[in-house]
Amino acid sequence: MTAFYQKLDHAWTTNNSLLMVGLDPDTQRFPAELDNRPDAIFEFCRAIVDATAPYACGFKPQIAYFASQRAESQLEGLCDYIREKYPTLPIVLDAKRGDIGSTAEHYAREAFERYCADAVTVSPYLGYDSIAPYLSWSDKGVIILCRTSNAGGSDLQFLDVDGEPLYLRVATLVAEKWNRSGQCGMVVGATFPKELAAVRQRIGNEVPLLVPGIGAQGGDIQATVTAGGNTGGTGLMISSSRAILYASQGDDWREAAARVARETRDAINAFR
Amino acid sequence: MTAFYQKLDHAWTTNNSLLMVGLDPDTQRFPAELDNRPDAIFEFCRAIVDATAPYACGFKPQIAYFASQRAESQLEGLCDYIREKYPTLPIVLDAKRGDIGSTAEHYAREAFERYCADAVTVSPYLGYDSIAPYLSWSDKGVIILCRTSNAGGSDLQFLDVDGEPLYLRVATLVAEKWNRSGQCGMVVGATFPKELAAVRQRIGNEVPLLVPGIGAQGGDIQATVTAGGNTGGTGLMISSSRAILYASQGDDWREAAARVARETRDAINAFR
Repeated sequence: MTAFYQKLDHAWTTNNSLLMVGLDPDTQRFPAELDNRPDAIFEFCRAIVDATAPYACGFKPQIAYFASQRAESQLEGLCDYIREKYPTLPIVLDAKRGDIGSTAEHYAREAFERYCADAVTVSPYLGYDSIAPYLSWSDKGVIILCRTSNAGGSDLQFLDVDGEPLYLRVATLVAEKWNRSGQCGMVVGATFPKELAAVRQRIGNEVPLLVPGIGAQGGDIQATVTAGGNTGGTGLMISSSRAILYASQGDDWREAAARVARETRDAINAFR
Repeated sequence: MTAFYQKLDHAWTTNNSLLMVGLDPDTQRFPAELDNRPDAIFEFCRAIVDATAPYACGFKPQIAYFASQRAESQLEGLCDYIREKYPTLPIVLDAKRGDIGSTAEHYAREAFERYCADAVTVSPYLGYDSIAPYLSWSDKGVIILCRTSNAGGSDLQFLDVDGEPLYLRVATLVAEKWNRSGQCGMVVGATFPKELAAVRQRIGNEVPLLVPGIGAQGGDIQATVTAGGNTGGTGLMISSSRAILYASQGDDWREAAARVARETRDAINAFR
């Protein structure tokens, strides 16, 4: 088993959790005590990490929220903090990069050298040679968009390709060709449990699926676990961000985040 | 005509050029005089901009090269510089973003507020609602990946969808639905002139095409202009990066970049 799969498997088992805590720091929704702090983004995320780490199988910072706020150095600090304090919990950098090989090499360096993420999300639209530069980092994971959780995902992903939808063709490409080194995962939204089941069937038992869309986006937990889990009762990184991060804007925001993370983990475990 | 189309049209006409100079700063290929300068990336790009501006219809910074080198502030400075010194030349931020709506809003702020780009490149894989947040910036352009210049692009883009390849379906979606506001462009690689002609036919006369792949990637200039140009002899942002940026690593690197940019512009104009 490759390093990323191993780290993830260890986190699933040790923390008894399939919950991936998404870090989407929206300063407009921060608690008042962080007002006017120059490092508010770091401090908010660090507190969320500390509050939710006992209930998580990893953390998924969404880089767009840092980039729009000129906060790359805070993201660096956050990744350093997670790696130091919770070294067994993987960091998935949610970046959805997709570019030609020479450019992808630079994005891989951004994800794996600068932020030292354990895995990064990427788009399949440019094909295998846009994914290969990430795979050359043999201890890292590469999580490929397949069936996304948004309504518009159907515009392309549901197009019929020789009798099956495009997203399933992407799953087939990953299963049969792109994942020879055993580093790939796939993104499938919780809002589409039938498609999640189809991808799990196509991709086999070992490939981890990153599943956004529960919580704020409305995906059903039972359907997600039943459709996407593997035979070992793992195989999923079920991502929740806003429902945990903004569980309370009062003084109890840390405790509220911890409570929602614990409840979400337990709700997931009830169906494993 | 929307603001982005107007600005581009003005640049095409005023500078008599369809050449978009790509800014992919690879420090390993920098001239020796920039060694050990903390602002080497900014200084290199600024010199390239000054050297090539008379021959260009705009500039296309590739954000991956800045992100891998922790150089976002140098990219900000570079965009400021271009906007101040060459206000008529559009800045296309090459970022190939693609994410759900709430995240896309943050990427749009990154491109249009932080870097003040005139346009940004995006991926179509997540569908219309992943593009819409960029379009809500009505004075900005949104350039959608269609047929990319890399070999692996065929993995998805050539899949057969109801009798035509996926990339043409994307062109149809843009032509018929996504571009109602007249802000969209499309990316089609110079390495595939037949596909370039098919996209131009499908998308109509007005939509600008960003065409990477001449120079280092081997695309043919005559075939590109013939296949992709519109009836007015414009319609193209033909991108060249490495061939210009690294024309010389000697003391004459500025002059060499200017010469290659002028020659490329002239080679393009010979076929308009």
